[in-house]
Amino acid sequence: MFQSEVKIRIRYAETDQMGYAYYGNYATYYEVARVETLRALGLPYKSMEEEGVMMPVLENHSKYIAPARYDDEITIRVFIKELPNVKIKFAYEFYNESGQLIHTGETLLIFMKNNTRKPCKVPENMLEKLKPFFEKA
Amino acid sequence: MFQSEVKIRIRYAETDQMGYAYYGNYATYYEVARVETLRALGLPYKSMEEEGVMMPVLENHSKYIAPARYDDEITIRVFIKELPNVKIKFAYEFYNESGQLIHTGETLLIFMKNNTRKPCKVPENMLEKLKPFFEKA
Amino acid sequence: MFQSEVKIRIRYAETDQMGYAYYGNYATYYEVARVETLRALGLPYKSMEEEGVMMPVLENHSKYIAPARYDDEITIRVFIKELPNVKIKFAYEFYNESGQLIHTGETLLIFMKNNTRKPCKVPENMLEKLKPFFEKA
Amino acid sequence: MFQSEVKIRIRYAETDQMGYAYYGNYATYYEVARVETLRALGLPYKSMEEEGVMMPVLENHSKYIAPARYDDEITIRVFIKELPNVKIKFAYEFYNESGQLIHTGETLLIFMKNNTRKPCKVPENMLEKLKPFFEKA
Repeated sequence: MFQSEVKIRIRYAETDQMGYAYYGNYATYYEVARVETLRALGLPYKSMEEEGVMMPVLENHSKYIAPARYDDEITIRVFIKELPNVKIKFAYEFYNESGQLIHTGETLLIFMKNNTRKPCKVPENMLEKLKPFFEKA
Repeated sequence: MFQSEVKIRIRYAETDQMGYAYYGNYATYYEVARVETLRALGLPYKSMEEEGVMMPVLENHSKYIAPARYDDEITIRVFIKELPNVKIKFAYEFYNESGQLIHTGETLLIFMKNNTRKPCKVPENMLEKLKPFFEKA
Repeated sequence: MFQSEVKIRIRYAETDQMGYAYYGNYATYYEVARVETLRALGLPYKSMEEEGVMMPVLENHSKYIAPARYDDEITIRVFIKELPNVKIKFAYEFYNESGQLIHTGETLLIFMKNNTRKPCKVPENMLEKLKPFFEKA
Repeated sequence: MFQSEVKIRIRYAETDQMGYAYYGNYATYYEVARVETLRALGLPYKSMEEEGVMMPVLENHSKYIAPARYDDEITIRVFIKELPNVKIKFAYEFYNESGQLIHTGETLLIFMKNNTRKPCKVPENMLEKLKPFFEKA
């Protein structure tokens, strides 16, 4: 399993009149968490797209346990629990500043050739970076 | 079962550099679909909040089958399949202009008192409006 | 002068914890107003981009007179006060349901070739559509 | 004059199909820049709202010189050029990773009592923090 940690801060733009971070913004937080996770692995998503591979989302699932509020600094734990092949799944846990679990989520993405818009295998360099985290002890 | 239909048009602001409607915007489309569905039932969500009942989201699930693109007019079919009690579930099907099913989703919301932020029962007037759609033939 | 009218409704996603439509969303409302204005003229912006002309924004100016609130239906009056050449300027007035002027704005855009990303002249068909509104009586 | 520097990174959610950061997102970047500037001064905006003072926006002005692109890290220089009284003006300069000035902006905000929604003077503690930057040498 691969695991990382990313921090985000709730922007005023992202609150709603309930005083909570609007539920639709979590998908953006997931994106930031994925991108920073890949960057920490030495795999900037931007380079991947420049090399012709996109990662559109197939499925997204969210559970809202407690609200995030304006200016809260949220710690997102990101998990890749299986080695990717044509698809890759990210799981997320959101913790507020008191360490309370306030949200969980899961996103399934597919690797796709930019030019043909057809599915393809996980890029070799990503696989190489991830493999060590999935080897048996 | 209660069913309705709502149309939205993809804004430029909502596209991303893949040329698709960004996956995080679907939650906003669901919101518009729910609000217009309640309005069609004679239940403006705004009045509900003014009467002290909010509907925060507990769960959200999305499947992306084919992309929506800029300026596409999308028809959203909205379904309430069970009479609500403390929670209410909305299901959505998105169709593009060719009638192709491009997306499905589901949102679970809870009724909550604005002042106490505690769960409460579905407002009586909403229940009354919905009941006829769930009566046996 | 060319003038048109477009209606939008404030989404929950667009409110902030002040209970107002977040100030950054007005640029999106301007976009919707421009696009629907061009559509009414028989000039879908989407087709323009498909024919290789984009309209990036050079300047944007906003004055917030009174807040727009959740679910408000806003009437946007859109003005093109000069025939465009390489640039085009749109002006906007926002009115709430009581007819109160709550916001004004102005956007300057440039016509640009999609492939070269260099400025170009206003497309001929747009000029043709606009000319009658600028002829002397 | 008071001056600070804030960094933001362009999110995928914030790009549009032109491949640029959507013009409407700059207002959100300004917000982040203002909030981090106030935090660096020891004045978290959140505390200000909790103490009953809000800062709604009266005017916003933007000039787009060159596009920001996905994943670009942007340095925002924030300027307060005059001591605030009932209003406060922030100016911004955006620089990309090559040090190129790509954008300038200006926002005028008003201090307002949360309960009455009436204008008020700049909070005393903000004035105290800012004063030293405006004293003559």
